[in-house]
Amino acid sequence: MLNKIDHIGVAVRSLDEAVGFYRAMGAEPYHFEEVPSQKVRVAFIKVGESNIELLEPTAPDSPVAIYLEKRGEGMHHICYNVDDVAAGLATLKDAGYRLIDEAPKPGAHGCTVAFVHPKSTNSVLTELSQHGEHEGH
Amino acid sequence: MLNKIDHIGVAVRSLDEAVGFYRAMGAEPYHFEEVPSQKVRVAFIKVGESNIELLEPTAPDSPVAIYLEKRGEGMHHICYNVDDVAAGLATLKDAGYRLIDEAPKPGAHGCTVAFVHPKSTNSVLTELSQHGEHEGH
Repeated sequence: MLNKIDHIGVAVRSLDEAVGFYRAMGAEPYHFEEVPSQKVRVAFIKVGESNIELLEPTAPDSPVAIYLEKRGEGMHHICYNVDDVAAGLATLKDAGYRLIDEAPKPGAHGCTVAFVHPKSTNSVLTELSQHGEHEGH
Repeated sequence: MLNKIDHIGVAVRSLDEAVGFYRAMGAEPYHFEEVPSQKVRVAFIKVGESNIELLEPTAPDSPVAIYLEKRGEGMHHICYNVDDVAAGLATLKDAGYRLIDEAPKPGAHGCTVAFVHPKSTNSVLTELSQHGEHEGH
């Protein structure tokens, strides 16, 4: 059901500074975007079939700013590509796992996404993502 | 130079408990191993071209036990597959990045590995890994 790691989200204070490491390793960021709903600016770096998503907060009340305040910089979440986010949520809910999102919601790049609560996943904030819009059941 | 995410290391208190989430998502751990040199027991779960490596400490002075004490459970390190670990280290050193390992060393599964210092990588403990033994330069 987990097709691949879609991306690893990394919370950073400065995108411009953080991209330096990936550039040094020959991996050029291919996309920068501001996501006003999450109050972050993001940079994507392709690594094999996956991506590194660098997240820089754009406001003090951004969830990523709050994370940086509490935990400092570092890996923030993992996102798995799945065929059907709704089916994944249903499976996890039935098995007693705690969800952040009870239903799929629109994500970046026209994907459909949902987050599983880190209390259920050994403190690894986990996102499920499928390409395209959710068709409904 | 970064071919793919080889694995994401996740520090957990109990492998047996932690594998439940991946099993619920249809991803069966395919390999369990004790690594006495690191005082950890590990489980590998394949996701696409990458792996999740769950790390459970086997002693209170295990580096992973110390990590758990300080930070709690969660994503612990990212490992990239590269063609040449020694060349990667040289590039990073020349660019001013701080290394944990100045030279490649033997890793699990007969790989050659080295760690970059998280101070240089926005607190993401980063491992470089190549298949097979390092040939020397």
